[in-house]
Amino acid sequence: MADEAPFQFLHNEVIQYIYKSADSEDTEHGGNISTLENMGCRVGQGLVERLTKDTARFKDELDIMKFVCKDFWTCVFKKQIDNLRTNHQGIYVLQDNKFRLLSQLSAGKQYLEHAPKYLAFSCGLVRGALTNLGVKSIVTAEVSVMPACKFQIMIQKNVATS
Amino acid sequence: MADEAPFQFLHNEVIQYIYKSADSEDTEHGGNISTLENMGCRVGQGLVERLTKDTARFKDELDIMKFVCKDFWTCVFKKQIDNLRTNHQGIYVLQDNKFRLLSQLSAGKQYLEHAPKYLAFSCGLVRGALTNLGVKSIVTAEVSVMPACKFQIMIQKNVATS
Repeated sequence: MADEAPFQFLHNEVIQYIYKSADSEDTEHGGNISTLENMGCRVGQGLVERLTKDTARFKDELDIMKFVCKDFWTCVFKKQIDNLRTNHQGIYVLQDNKFRLLSQLSAGKQYLEHAPKYLAFSCGLVRGALTNLGVKSIVTAEVSVMPACKFQIMIQKNVATS
Repeated sequence: MADEAPFQFLHNEVIQYIYKSADSEDTEHGGNISTLENMGCRVGQGLVERLTKDTARFKDELDIMKFVCKDFWTCVFKKQIDNLRTNHQGIYVLQDNKFRLLSQLSAGKQYLEHAPKYLAFSCGLVRGALTNLGVKSIVTAEVSVMPACKFQIMIQKNVATS
């Protein structure tokens, strides 16, 4: 029995509920996605707070990314990110070759259109984790072949710290 | 880091979301609780399906209850039920002395009134698990001293199987 199953089933229920409770079709591709994203963000913040309680400070941005790919990902998805790349200019790409929250969707191409609602929560999760580690970012995700998935992180630099 | 943390944080978000999205106060003690209960029920059904994939059939009702107290509870809450009692007439009481989904609530008596919304999902979880094991039931929960919690299961006997 996979340890992440309760989380995975609950995540599915949340998606169903949010999409069902939004009556109007027009909110589907805006409101619901951002609801899921925000939910993920708060969960990510909470988790990082707990996870880093006894952790030494991070050296730099790359060090933070490695933490997200290893400790953070393992905490939520019981596996590490398979590949981390960066252009050294504020863009990071995290690849998960078998993303757990997509593994219940069939692999057929016809299901690709449903992928965004299964990814929004996790994009928020990463954004929330990074926010609490002092890194402001925009996180998007894309799927080419299920259940592999890439998360792209664009670091947002501030001129003034707010 | 506790393994159940992602589930726990997500569970909290679900409660916040459901209570926020229901605008009218009057639905608070009916609609929201039953939304959470139904959500839990479906998660419980899904989990039991996975958990019992390779399990031998259960001997009797008590055998099923022991499975819920041990394997099922450990899967979701990473601990077993601390005490199982029955009157041998269709009522079972499951006591968890440190119920995980209450552990984020402070222990003060003034928070007791919030307990029901933190228990509804788990009542459904148990009901769903039992349903998929062929046992129809009504599950309620009560808290006297946080974070200890008792789940009462009343078996519903059918004259005709439906």
